[in-house]
Amino acid sequence: MAFVDIILKKKEGLPLTDEEIRLFAEGAATGSVPDYQLSALLMAICFQGLDARETTTLTMEMMKSGDQVDLSGINDICVDKHSTGGVGDTTTLVVVPLVAACGAHVAKLSGRGLGHTGGTLDKIESVPGCRIDLSEEQFIEQVKDIGCAVIGQTKNLCPADKSLYAIRDVTGTVGCVPLIASSIISKKLASGAGAIVLDVKTGSGALMHTLEDSVKLAETMVAIGRHAGKPVYALVTGMDQPLGTHVGNALEVKEAVDILSGRAAGDLLEVSLELGSRMLMAVGKAESVEDGKRQMTEAIQSGAGLRKLSEMFRAQGASADVCQDVSLLPQAPVQIPVPAPRDGYVVSMDTTEIGYCAQHIGAGRVTKADTIDPAVGLVMQVRLGDYVRAGEPMCTLHLRNRSQADAAVRAMQEAVCIGEKAPEKRPLVYAFVSADETIYAEGYGPEKN
Amino acid sequence: MAFVDIILKKKEGLPLTDEEIRLFAEGAATGSVPDYQLSALLMAICFQGLDARETTTLTMEMMKSGDQVDLSGINDICVDKHSTGGVGDTTTLVVVPLVAACGAHVAKLSGRGLGHTGGTLDKIESVPGCRIDLSEEQFIEQVKDIGCAVIGQTKNLCPADKSLYAIRDVTGTVGCVPLIASSIISKKLASGAGAIVLDVKTGSGALMHTLEDSVKLAETMVAIGRHAGKPVYALVTGMDQPLGTHVGNALEVKEAVDILSGRAAGDLLEVSLELGSRMLMAVGKAESVEDGKRQMTEAIQSGAGLRKLSEMFRAQGASADVCQDVSLLPQAPVQIPVPAPRDGYVVSMDTTEIGYCAQHIGAGRVTKADTIDPAVGLVMQVRLGDYVRAGEPMCTLHLRNRSQADAAVRAMQEAVCIGEKAPEKRPLVYAFVSADETIYAEGYGPEKN
Repeated sequence: MAFVDIILKKKEGLPLTDEEIRLFAEGAATGSVPDYQLSALLMAICFQGLDARETTTLTMEMMKSGDQVDLSGINDICVDKHSTGGVGDTTTLVVVPLVAACGAHVAKLSGRGLGHTGGTLDKIESVPGCRIDLSEEQFIEQVKDIGCAVIGQTKNLCPADKSLYAIRDVTGTVGCVPLIASSIISKKLASGAGAIVLDVKTGSGALMHTLEDSVKLAETMVAIGRHAGKPVYALVTGMDQPLGTHVGNALEVKEAVDILSGRAAGDLLEVSLELGSRMLMAVGKAESVEDGKRQMTEAIQSGAGLRKLSEMFRAQGASADVCQDVSLLPQAPVQIPVPAPRDGYVVSMDTTEIGYCAQHIGAGRVTKADTIDPAVGLVMQVRLGDYVRAGEPMCTLHLRNRSQADAAVRAMQEAVCIGEKAPEKRPLVYAFVSADETIYAEGYGPEKN
Repeated sequence: MAFVDIILKKKEGLPLTDEEIRLFAEGAATGSVPDYQLSALLMAICFQGLDARETTTLTMEMMKSGDQVDLSGINDICVDKHSTGGVGDTTTLVVVPLVAACGAHVAKLSGRGLGHTGGTLDKIESVPGCRIDLSEEQFIEQVKDIGCAVIGQTKNLCPADKSLYAIRDVTGTVGCVPLIASSIISKKLASGAGAIVLDVKTGSGALMHTLEDSVKLAETMVAIGRHAGKPVYALVTGMDQPLGTHVGNALEVKEAVDILSGRAAGDLLEVSLELGSRMLMAVGKAESVEDGKRQMTEAIQSGAGLRKLSEMFRAQGASADVCQDVSLLPQAPVQIPVPAPRDGYVVSMDTTEIGYCAQHIGAGRVTKADTIDPAVGLVMQVRLGDYVRAGEPMCTLHLRNRSQADAAVRAMQEAVCIGEKAPEKRPLVYAFVSADETIYAEGYGPEKN
């Protein structure tokens, strides 16, 4: 069958056969189908969609297109988590040590910062001496030894996804639920995950801006898991403001340490408990969400979670125990407060712009070749609904040099919208999706959309 | 503006600015935009369309992307015709000499056969000695001298269209009204046409299978003409069976000669008179359709049309006067009748399959590298609605060798459907589209679709 006929079929809204999808994934992985045909099919998929079978087949074919990590040596089902990307979202550094402290095994391959969102690998590398380039053997040994490891990808995982993603990025075909879902799940399956808990962000700082699209993405990924025979759960959580208060690499490590020490709390902790309790349930280490949350809260109180993070950093080469002393983390020389321009309530935040602000002052890469400054970032001092007075600080910028201050202050004053009426309170978790059902927060079910 | 943002804009259904469309055409012509981005935008256009302004801008930008033929030396507005492609459609060889005999000037650049449809250049080359590779000077001199010339493209016309067409062909993005319309009209304008009459085919052998799509294509092309300030008219004509009775290169030249000699008539003549009368009106050589038809009929009766064709062939190098003696045309050594498999009415024909049958026996190219056999083809002996008896010939195959017979007979017996009830009679001209209005054949207006 000529590839153009596969494109035409999808353009007309017909489902593709498993064999046609295999040709698509193989063509992307090997280059046997030219990019201009791949991009035409991707665009047709954006308009016509993929059904559950097609999406699952694409996921499995992308997974099979390259190497796969074999975690069978660990003798326990490894549970993984994945976030669709947010600002000030360092749940991984909170939840991974906590669930490991509760007896779960997490062998996690993580990513770099992308666009306005941070990346766990960059955060870990802000810890002096800490490495993310372990060999697969070291990685597995570490998980067997201490229960968790978070490293970068070493093998050639999902080359089909890699090619397709590179094309999607420049052809306007990123925003498409079945393509996003298959991309995420194929990588998680190839990296050996036995159970997966997903955090699908929704709101101004998320890939998906509407709750409807976010729930659809969550349901699509959970359905792939069901078809692939792996337990997959998803939470749809708010990203209308940075999740934690800290944005920037060392700053986010500091916040994770503060939370695991019991010194800090808030939305980042709440979402971590929500995710972590599902991770524990997925591998049989908790009986219920409540049981999971209770175990994790105890691990904070006992210090077991913080010790686990410390062990993980040390196992990955850390030269200083930042878990005992956060002042050992890199610190930015200049700190500048961003004053509120007027009295009023914090009505909304352009969270994407906050992410870009952090990126531009050096916490993220504008191009792939850029180096990250681990110390810089910003710390939010207000949250949605807070009342501020003109001149009071809304956040503090942590800068490498003073010359960046003016633009960053302006950007933050534009990103935080102050108005006269307090905004309606929104839930942190909008929905929980399992293979059996989608449970919405009260007042957010489909009839309310 | 990054090209991906142009793709995203169209994907979201927003109109592109003139500058964005210019970047698209320039990117296609120069290669500055990679094929995978062009194909993604083409697919997005298939789904979201282009409005009248966008379509006109794309047409003009494609026209300006390369050379343009300057016909100003001819001292008369040259009128051109274009058919969207059919089977047994040799109207060019009937209508061009007829309108030239009536005083119009036709400087026509024509094309090769494509897929199941024949090409005028291939037909002209079946005349012994006749050439289609005249220089632009020779071309213009010939039109000044005898009123008409039909040659191949020499200059680099519309490179943007050439690139986009090559991509469309392999990415499933051929069937899209604004893309088809801008492709056709950009080439006609670049080749110097001052007025254009279009023959948009509809039915089983046409690019557009439904009347609705065909009328939409006709209206789109006429609208481009209005925006570009050139008179463009379009007829929507039936292609539910081969237009003429002869399919194949020398065979179609023979039919044109037979019609110009007054020895043959039928649908090919009817459509030629419809097209030609509009061509004459477009350049002020006829006052009405009736006047145009009358002049052309007289040119047949007087032999002026046949003499014009003969002059044209001679001017282009013909070594034998096939207009006086059609037996000087190449003839296939084997003639095989295709018997009707049963009694009944000819209910329908798969005209595309009839075109492919002619292609496969050598009248067309399967790949670009193939050579055409000018002599082979087929002559239909039945038309839609005819009653045939089992064993009576439905058509005669003209073959190079007998080994091709079995497959071709089977193909023709499958392509011609015989049933018990006579089919409803359909008009030859379904609609006429001018800048002012669309006039449908009785019973075929939009409310009947």
